[in-house]
Amino acid sequence: MKVARLGEFGLIEKFRKITPRGHGVSIGIGDDAACVEAISHSILLTSDLLIENVHFKLSWTSPFALGYKAVAVNLSDIAAMGGVPLYLVLALGLPPTFHVNEVHRMYRGMRSACAETGVSLVGGDTSSADRLTISICMVGHAPVQPVRRDGAAVGDDIFVTGTLGDSALALNLLQSRTPADSKSRSIGFLLRRHHQPTPRLAAGLSLARAGAATAMIDISDGLLQDLGHVCKASGIGAEIWQKHIPVSSAYRQHTGSSGMHYALGGGEDYELLFCAKPDRRAQITKLAKSSGVRMTRIGKCVSAKSGIIVLDESGSRVPVSVKGYDHFARRRISRSSK
Amino acid sequence: MKVARLGEFGLIEKFRKITPRGHGVSIGIGDDAACVEAISHSILLTSDLLIENVHFKLSWTSPFALGYKAVAVNLSDIAAMGGVPLYLVLALGLPPTFHVNEVHRMYRGMRSACAETGVSLVGGDTSSADRLTISICMVGHAPVQPVRRDGAAVGDDIFVTGTLGDSALALNLLQSRTPADSKSRSIGFLLRRHHQPTPRLAAGLSLARAGAATAMIDISDGLLQDLGHVCKASGIGAEIWQKHIPVSSAYRQHTGSSGMHYALGGGEDYELLFCAKPDRRAQITKLAKSSGVRMTRIGKCVSAKSGIIVLDESGSRVPVSVKGYDHFARRRISRSSK
Repeated sequence: MKVARLGEFGLIEKFRKITPRGHGVSIGIGDDAACVEAISHSILLTSDLLIENVHFKLSWTSPFALGYKAVAVNLSDIAAMGGVPLYLVLALGLPPTFHVNEVHRMYRGMRSACAETGVSLVGGDTSSADRLTISICMVGHAPVQPVRRDGAAVGDDIFVTGTLGDSALALNLLQSRTPADSKSRSIGFLLRRHHQPTPRLAAGLSLARAGAATAMIDISDGLLQDLGHVCKASGIGAEIWQKHIPVSSAYRQHTGSSGMHYALGGGEDYELLFCAKPDRRAQITKLAKSSGVRMTRIGKCVSAKSGIIVLDESGSRVPVSVKGYDHFARRRISRSSK
Repeated sequence: MKVARLGEFGLIEKFRKITPRGHGVSIGIGDDAACVEAISHSILLTSDLLIENVHFKLSWTSPFALGYKAVAVNLSDIAAMGGVPLYLVLALGLPPTFHVNEVHRMYRGMRSACAETGVSLVGGDTSSADRLTISICMVGHAPVQPVRRDGAAVGDDIFVTGTLGDSALALNLLQSRTPADSKSRSIGFLLRRHHQPTPRLAAGLSLARAGAATAMIDISDGLLQDLGHVCKASGIGAEIWQKHIPVSSAYRQHTGSSGMHYALGGGEDYELLFCAKPDRRAQITKLAKSSGVRMTRIGKCVSAKSGIIVLDESGSRVPVSVKGYDHFARRRISRSSK
């Protein structure tokens, strides 16, 4: 059945029936606004807008993965503050010819990401649109002081969680139209990293609780671009050791001559980048172990006048032409180390 | 200058610079998530998605009015719960060819609605889109028990605030292509009612504080359709006295043979509909006076099996064919009293 046949209110009613009333939710889907219980800590608010053919192509993703990812990218923003996600408000624009079953599958993906992280979907808005449009607002709380982008200082170490570049490499495989063997284990890994990124909530929270990170950001636009945001906000520069940038074995297997291209500049990793004083190294090793997430030291904060430089094994500057996403430019931004 | 030239981060930086740091906001625009202080009351969450050519046409509205209205429709949802609005998160999809000046004017409209109601814009997301897309999530708090849709009972009075139908009549004038004389005072009034609706925050809050309303909703889809939502949620029917439905003198002047058509079925009034026990009438008269908003008794709650009926002066049923908006149907819903 197409959504036009079920209608706006039929769809809302369907959502309402299959949405569990979450903890702390006194009024859920179906009133003018949702109502949740008071939050005794500072409140975190973030939102992300995903539009068909701008942020995703329906031919490249399953509705389930799309729903999952739409939630995950917001969870990643909460993780980057060292917060705990609580509630989700969903504004959905649907083409009238869209199938109700597809909406349902997308919704199941959202619920899956919510269930894994204890988040309740509490309400939103449903409307027609020419292109599938998903706007999610996530509400979280900060049990301890949130970690901002602007607290890094010269001399701080720079760390990243997980591995970088998998998602951008997967996107490249999807775009290349050479049929990637999705049954290959390594390709499957890369595609999962692109379609269903893991928000680093435990890592972000443990770093915030320990007071270990001086600045933190999630890597959504590419390592060097997001590092650039931290540098700009903190008034510093950065030196990155290319050899230390963590990449997966699947990445190594499929990059070929592209080398570190995707790891340095590719977007949608949804890993965390954070800075910390050098005397925190032992503590960070322990936090990585306890949160089950790899944390790799990849460089250090230097004077702002150095800008961002990438060094190879011999200590020579790598002439990087790194690309991060600027939505309006509709081109990738070049950042050269000259 | 077009937004493509300024770029995503240039635009965010521009927004950041001109956005005042609101009360209670510890981290505003420019980090992964915004951070606001703890809220000691229940929290209200609502969102609305506005898409070009679905919800508005740029040729019919000014960017300022569009920004104002995008905020106002969310404020109206908070008003309908009897709440107080606090924070706004904005997800904006912009065509790259859109002019920065237009974005700025739209933003000024948003700021105007925020400033009037003490709301702080704290963050969001900016992205490219084929069509201008505005998704706002509003966070409020409920100083007293929020008023739901499902508390009305047989015998309750039915009230509405303000006047109905002005907005839908204005939309009809805009659609008719017969050049409406916008210099006419009455046309100007109707167009303002359509483009810059007044959310009934003081009225909603005073009704909630007094515990006077058993159910409340904002009229966004048309009187009879929104009344239908209250009836369905509360398990009741309703009898509406057509003669009592409040309309403006401008409405009377310009409806001609359409009579009560727009007042009964037209959308986007953003007035409040609420139910109350008959022993509250004197109190409601006082609340109307103190909040400076007209509150008119237009009918009563009856048994569910009666459905929704509209009566004329002689007590005869009016054969209404009332239209409210269903986004997917892309047609107006017929509801006949038979």
